[in-house]
Amino acid sequence: MSRATRFLDACRRRPVDATPIWIMRQAGRYLPDYRAVRERVSFLELCNTPELAAEVTLQPVDQLGVDAAIIFSDIMVPAMAMGAEVSFDDGPPRLATPVRDRSGVDALVVPDPTETCRSVLDAIRITRAELDGRVPLIGFAAAPWTLATYMVDGGPSKAFRFSKAMAFGAPDPWNRLVDKIVETTIAYLSAQVEAGAGAVQLFDTWAGVLSPADYEGVALPGARRIIEGLGDLGVPILYFPRGAGQMFDRVATCGADVIGLDWTIDIAKARRALGDRIAVQGNLDPAALFLDPLEIERRAERILRDAGAAPGHIFNLGHGILPQTPPEHARALVDVVHGFRRADEGAP
Amino acid sequence: MSRATRFLDACRRRPVDATPIWIMRQAGRYLPDYRAVRERVSFLELCNTPELAAEVTLQPVDQLGVDAAIIFSDIMVPAMAMGAEVSFDDGPPRLATPVRDRSGVDALVVPDPTETCRSVLDAIRITRAELDGRVPLIGFAAAPWTLATYMVDGGPSKAFRFSKAMAFGAPDPWNRLVDKIVETTIAYLSAQVEAGAGAVQLFDTWAGVLSPADYEGVALPGARRIIEGLGDLGVPILYFPRGAGQMFDRVATCGADVIGLDWTIDIAKARRALGDRIAVQGNLDPAALFLDPLEIERRAERILRDAGAAPGHIFNLGHGILPQTPPEHARALVDVVHGFRRADEGAP
Repeated sequence: MSRATRFLDACRRRPVDATPIWIMRQAGRYLPDYRAVRERVSFLELCNTPELAAEVTLQPVDQLGVDAAIIFSDIMVPAMAMGAEVSFDDGPPRLATPVRDRSGVDALVVPDPTETCRSVLDAIRITRAELDGRVPLIGFAAAPWTLATYMVDGGPSKAFRFSKAMAFGAPDPWNRLVDKIVETTIAYLSAQVEAGAGAVQLFDTWAGVLSPADYEGVALPGARRIIEGLGDLGVPILYFPRGAGQMFDRVATCGADVIGLDWTIDIAKARRALGDRIAVQGNLDPAALFLDPLEIERRAERILRDAGAAPGHIFNLGHGILPQTPPEHARALVDVVHGFRRADEGAP
Repeated sequence: MSRATRFLDACRRRPVDATPIWIMRQAGRYLPDYRAVRERVSFLELCNTPELAAEVTLQPVDQLGVDAAIIFSDIMVPAMAMGAEVSFDDGPPRLATPVRDRSGVDALVVPDPTETCRSVLDAIRITRAELDGRVPLIGFAAAPWTLATYMVDGGPSKAFRFSKAMAFGAPDPWNRLVDKIVETTIAYLSAQVEAGAGAVQLFDTWAGVLSPADYEGVALPGARRIIEGLGDLGVPILYFPRGAGQMFDRVATCGADVIGLDWTIDIAKARRALGDRIAVQGNLDPAALFLDPLEIERRAERILRDAGAAPGHIFNLGHGILPQTPPEHARALVDVVHGFRRADEGAP
């Protein structure tokens, strides 16, 4: 039963038989079976059809041999439930009407996710039943800063001009927006756990576009409030502040059980900065999966060594797997991680 | 004559009457006079017409009151001189034929920049004459890793899939490519100094997409060789490894006189990491220039205070000024920086 438990054990910093691994975006375009489903339905239809979302969630579990599933969905789902009109068109999300001021924020609702996000919750229930205890299922949401960047800038951004202008210069609408996102996200992730998620990850994909002082001022507080608000659920909480390697003294105060590391962070340094009460997850450069398997092995083993012998490391990429990745390279990575033993541990 | 000397003095970590400031992309789209020129000629024509390049280079000098000019050009100029066919079409550079293997690298030449980059050198000569000693003129080039990402991936990239595959997995073509870029860039920057550049900046815009180990393995060596190769020129060398805040122990060994800091770096921490033999340049978030001037002042003064009282700070943004920036906000920033005095220094 080790595969069923090693992810959650590592989140709790308990000893494991092998380092657990899952891969961000493991249900995605690099898998032929996923592409076959996407030939029939749009991205949004896939998110909104519980049976199909469950199907693609399950694909990588046996095909790669990973130690956790993560529900297939999108970080914009709760924003849509709040009233944002979002389109995808096979690319990044775009808002019909970006939230730029107080009236825009006031127009947003704090939804009841058990009603408005029912597709995701149903997908979790179906997946959980299909998994039948093989591996745990991870739920997720965006952290408030990251969700707000999409809602305020209206889509993907390079400069984050509008979201930064609001966050740095307009505390009234900004704090109201964060309040609504925090309240929505706590309810949404609680409902995911209720439906069967055994852990939840908060994605702060755009943490790294902020200075350390601004991260502390505008991104960290909302994330921390969500983590605190989920404290009674009894499941591990993972927080992934991408690009925040220079702010790990602040990140360490977020309250999460596990901190996700992108690949620009030295994992040994991160473990020292975070102390022994926080587990880490990461952190192979996704582009490394285009190298030949021997080089993948060399790079994965360096991370495993650098992560140290103390419990509390979940292997992952430092960001989502790239669409053109050869699936057999992802499988090879999983095998390397599961087969790794420290020099002082002997053969597997 | 203080405006004429304070930039170079700060590069040399000599005391100055006021912190010098220039702004990356200060000759650019946010300035109405620049847009007026661009209505008549394409970006590439502008780069290739010395009189026009000099004209836009000079525009911000008096309009903003900055303490240095930087020659208007593009980092792809030496790549084109090496044989790459590059188009812009009012957007980022795209290569007709990306350099993906040994034969692609072999097809590149090491040009004589005094012939093939003559437009830039002429623009420097004209600008230098027009400046007439008011402020120094900065020349520039891309660092090898950054230039290679464009040449190998064929344009702007999110994943840097091909450049990383070559840099991490194919040392033969990779090292040959870096050798050619290093040789070209040393000759090119030397020619810029010969033509009148009083300092040169090496842009490593994509340093931050590498892990610390990969930065050390594939980006830093080429940058260091260029800096060493320019050592006898007697002008300050500035190196801007964007996103490399977590690798400053390595960056500190590059040999440059000044390290550019993006805004995700705590400037006080950077100064401690770099020691007192290296000056720093930076590091206001470019998005801060959309805030109201009082908030711009607050943020600029925090950076000035955090930079410390030791000589060797050049104020700049942490990346290029954004196209929609109000020019009067850039002017306000320049005034704040020039007017700043530490609490223990008394009024200006």
